[in-house]
Amino acid sequence: MTEEQLSSNHPPLPPTTEEDRFSWLRLLRSRKVGPATFRRLLREHGSAQNALAALPEMARAAGIEGYEICPPGVIEAELKAAKAAKARLLYLGSADFPAALNDLNDAPPMLWAIGNVSLLQQPAIAMVGARNCSSLGARMARGLATDLGGKGHVIVSGLARGIDTAAHIAALTSGTIAVMAGGVDVIYPAENTELAHNIASNGLRLSEQPMGVTPQARHFPRRNRIISGLAQAVVVVEAAAKSGSLITARDALDQGREVLAVPGHPFDARAAGCNLLIRDGATLVRSAEDVIEALPQKDDLFSRKPDQPPAPAAPRSQDLHVQILERLGPSPIAEDQLLRDIAASAGELGPALVDLELDGRIQRQPGGLLSLAG
Amino acid sequence: MTEEQLSSNHPPLPPTTEEDRFSWLRLLRSRKVGPATFRRLLREHGSAQNALAALPEMARAAGIEGYEICPPGVIEAELKAAKAAKARLLYLGSADFPAALNDLNDAPPMLWAIGNVSLLQQPAIAMVGARNCSSLGARMARGLATDLGGKGHVIVSGLARGIDTAAHIAALTSGTIAVMAGGVDVIYPAENTELAHNIASNGLRLSEQPMGVTPQARHFPRRNRIISGLAQAVVVVEAAAKSGSLITARDALDQGREVLAVPGHPFDARAAGCNLLIRDGATLVRSAEDVIEALPQKDDLFSRKPDQPPAPAAPRSQDLHVQILERLGPSPIAEDQLLRDIAASAGELGPALVDLELDGRIQRQPGGLLSLAG
Repeated sequence: MTEEQLSSNHPPLPPTTEEDRFSWLRLLRSRKVGPATFRRLLREHGSAQNALAALPEMARAAGIEGYEICPPGVIEAELKAAKAAKARLLYLGSADFPAALNDLNDAPPMLWAIGNVSLLQQPAIAMVGARNCSSLGARMARGLATDLGGKGHVIVSGLARGIDTAAHIAALTSGTIAVMAGGVDVIYPAENTELAHNIASNGLRLSEQPMGVTPQARHFPRRNRIISGLAQAVVVVEAAAKSGSLITARDALDQGREVLAVPGHPFDARAAGCNLLIRDGATLVRSAEDVIEALPQKDDLFSRKPDQPPAPAAPRSQDLHVQILERLGPSPIAEDQLLRDIAASAGELGPALVDLELDGRIQRQPGGLLSLAG
Repeated sequence: MTEEQLSSNHPPLPPTTEEDRFSWLRLLRSRKVGPATFRRLLREHGSAQNALAALPEMARAAGIEGYEICPPGVIEAELKAAKAAKARLLYLGSADFPAALNDLNDAPPMLWAIGNVSLLQQPAIAMVGARNCSSLGARMARGLATDLGGKGHVIVSGLARGIDTAAHIAALTSGTIAVMAGGVDVIYPAENTELAHNIASNGLRLSEQPMGVTPQARHFPRRNRIISGLAQAVVVVEAAAKSGSLITARDALDQGREVLAVPGHPFDARAAGCNLLIRDGATLVRSAEDVIEALPQKDDLFSRKPDQPPAPAAPRSQDLHVQILERLGPSPIAEDQLLRDIAASAGELGPALVDLELDGRIQRQPGGLLSLAG
């Protein structure tokens, strides 16, 4: 294994055999394996097959009773559904996987795709906004998507009502990508069925969820990180205060993406979110020219050659793992105590502990106590 | 004369006798004497009387034929008109003169005032915007003026139609100042006659122009520098691209004032100027709170004790005078050549040459040639 492969943020080598591909999907679909854990398991065990073989014992060592890896029948069913939907699986690290996502700490290890995957090789701009947008907002979205599409930018959005719908429709011929919250074969909302079919024919539909999954509330923020992750910039067209679009915008900032917003009059509640973003430093958008002017130079994002590793942005969760392991010893201490000792919130600590348990590196003791695994 | 009085930017000592006050006004009303020249003449000659006595000879030495200082009858007529209009004259450097204007290189040496001059001692916010504003814009102006007035801020504007009118009306009871483009006794537009009377009764009207002057196009930008100069911040409520409000905003930036703007939808042409300002860095305004948050701390602008000189910001015109004098000698050179040699535009050079001619320090020769005065 080369040093490059050991670098925590470098994408893994993609699977090369049928068996390997099957194991990748099976590993990701196994309980308690999210994108970050998937990547670490692959790194630590060298292959998905090895990781799958090690998982039950790791779970047992972490005190998880009756842990089972995903049964092969589930994967067979998913592959069958994908075939019926004409969906193909894109693997992190392979040439057809969107390079822009490699940078993310929690990049999806695999994406289901229906449509023209070559759109993933073009520069993309995300457009998001209110579901219950005004006609003015929809018109703005159409105008921006048409003009940006005309200048060679793929429009990424979420197939929702309102702004998303307007942006996708306007960019159907120039190129548009819909990132779905549920399975790539589950169209939501139903009123966008025709649009979803048109996107499959002319554009691209993507999802990290298993085939057939009905979208639930928790899927949307996960999906939004892919929308912003695929794009050089995120344009918020119309958004109320405290709307989901604002969360996407903040995620985009965390991902180092440009965030732009279309202003509106302060008396228009549907502009409140956009005005807030602009007040906080987002670039004000009046036209497609404003968006293009704000884009990073192409060199910044797309000129990196595939054989160069990305900038070594150590994922926050890695730091946290190190902190936790340094503070734990063979004698158990309370989780509360650990939380006070390290620079993390309870919300961050929880998942990190699950990761470490699953890795078999820490053990839970009765009474909420934690210790290093013996 | 103390060193402080010699500092170019420090306000002069105000006149103390009736004769002195008469001479101040007469000097300012004399041909080719603008605010900057007035200040320099007063500094160089010690008193307005001395400056008036020296002016004709200075003009002759500068090659200006038949120069005459302002006849006393003109001043007597102006004072009579002022008495009829119940206007009083505020002198630069006196306690009732607005301290915020002292900082300006081209502060008016005198201002006619009708109404409550104590409003000049309170913190002020300027509101400007389109004459042909939308009802939304007028409503925004009313709301901001009411809320800012309620928090103790005097609202300064220009008595124009539209945004100005809405702002003045809303701030009538809390305190408002109208800076007039023409004479303080000449109400323009006529439809604002009642408002102008109400401002005289409850607020304050100001003008640097002679009594009775009908406002002309060239007066408005001069007037606008006083509007922004009086205020800590300038709020542009609604403004089209290339509108006068944008010029006021840029002047305000030059004066070191905060510039804020109310956004609007890009499809609304009446918001184009405001959106442009925000894109260029003006603070986005949704409410009075946004304005107050953007204000400089009181210490910055109002805590300077009257006996402390302002920060020594050497006026650009002074630099230019030095540059010109350094490049000229007894042998005449062409004005074009001078322009190429110094870091100034033709628009800046012209007034500087007139100043220096009037000062008797340079001479014009036939054929557009210039030389140092012998």
